[in-house]
Amino acid sequence: MMRIKLTVAYDGTDFVGWQYQPNGVSVQQRLEEAIAQLTGSVHAVHSSGRTDAGVHARGMVCHLTTELMLPVKAWREGVNRFLPEAIAVRRAEVVEDDFHARFSAQGKFYRYTILRDSVRSPLERRISWQIKQPLDLAAMRKAAESFVGDHDFAAFRTSGCAAETTVRNMTSVSLVEDGDLLYIDVRGGGFLRNMVRMMVGTLVDIGRGKRPPEDIARMLSAPGSVPPALTAPAQGLCLMDVVY
Amino acid sequence: MMRIKLTVAYDGTDFVGWQYQPNGVSVQQRLEEAIAQLTGSVHAVHSSGRTDAGVHARGMVCHLTTELMLPVKAWREGVNRFLPEAIAVRRAEVVEDDFHARFSAQGKFYRYTILRDSVRSPLERRISWQIKQPLDLAAMRKAAESFVGDHDFAAFRTSGCAAETTVRNMTSVSLVEDGDLLYIDVRGGGFLRNMVRMMVGTLVDIGRGKRPPEDIARMLSAPGSVPPALTAPAQGLCLMDVVY
Repeated sequence: MMRIKLTVAYDGTDFVGWQYQPNGVSVQQRLEEAIAQLTGSVHAVHSSGRTDAGVHARGMVCHLTTELMLPVKAWREGVNRFLPEAIAVRRAEVVEDDFHARFSAQGKFYRYTILRDSVRSPLERRISWQIKQPLDLAAMRKAAESFVGDHDFAAFRTSGCAAETTVRNMTSVSLVEDGDLLYIDVRGGGFLRNMVRMMVGTLVDIGRGKRPPEDIARMLSAPGSVPPALTAPAQGLCLMDVVY
Repeated sequence: MMRIKLTVAYDGTDFVGWQYQPNGVSVQQRLEEAIAQLTGSVHAVHSSGRTDAGVHARGMVCHLTTELMLPVKAWREGVNRFLPEAIAVRRAEVVEDDFHARFSAQGKFYRYTILRDSVRSPLERRISWQIKQPLDLAAMRKAAESFVGDHDFAAFRTSGCAAETTVRNMTSVSLVEDGDLLYIDVRGGGFLRNMVRMMVGTLVDIGRGKRPPEDIARMLSAPGSVPPALTAPAQGLCLMDVVY
């Protein structure tokens, strides 16, 4: 038996998300199908987590267990031959038998991309959230610092989130300017459902002057005391890396 | 009568090109349809040139003549309401009656995007040509200089090109590195059909060591003396700007 770790990138635009869903095609389904076509046998892949419909990844990680003695290269190049253009295995590695994509993960890095442009821009529409109003980056940066550390993120999850505890640790939340693009880079030990998108939505509300920067500290300490978080649209979000 | 200059951006992936074609939907068709929906009357738009199927634009320019007394803003924001997400009017201006998108143009700026990555990368696939082998950028830069100035570009056009003369002036051809991305920025007074893509294809052959850098000078002076140019794929090309 061998355990294989796969690092997977995808353009999430045309998928219902990572996980199998009754209403459409998921990334996991396409990946398991490609593996079945390559190997002739069924392998379940276990991921570090899910991504929602429309969310992208450059470094989603999953693992599988196999009795096949394929060269490790086949798990990348062979699988890629059967994947649609929108998905690619970026890396395949043989790992220890006790490696688990989800339980071994130490943290994740998400990047949210905002396009700051006053006129609609077709070439960035699939990978960014376009904001036409000016943004107060100084206020957003100040507010972003409030996320760092251990906090109760109960105000930053959707009602469908099944997590038992809502305390999470954020290592850093930083804003990076790149021309018209603004990246909000979020690194942390773990995330609740829709958490990054709700963090970004709240930061954007602050940038637009609709909320004071102090709202984030209030939402972390007393969630009901201020208006709920806005959820930023899916297409701006990308899972960049899972840290082990 | 008023003459309106429109600057248009589009994601060319799902169009048959700028110009009307019997085999699918063109950008020009969608733009003229949107104008008809907004104004209730037919306006023909005249462009600075064509782009092929799959080629993108950030700054395609076209003009139209109208008897309608709409505020100029309507030609941008109003038209955008009826355009698909993949097309947007970025700018609308009232211009002199003798302005002509094609005949008044002094030059154009095209950017060709190459992704240098040894593994397939889904998120750049619509806007770049991925090259998996290493590229010798020094050889490419040296070769690119040979394009600058007045030259006969007969070796850099497709057989379907109807231009009467093949001498064109290139102002600059420069390579710009941006992480894994490599831009080949081409500025010139005028272009033949597929010219930029054939210039890029030849530069990439040089970068891969399949041709010497001197081949470009030979192709400009004695086209038949060396193998013909490779045509780079459409999705890497973007019309950035038309200069008036």
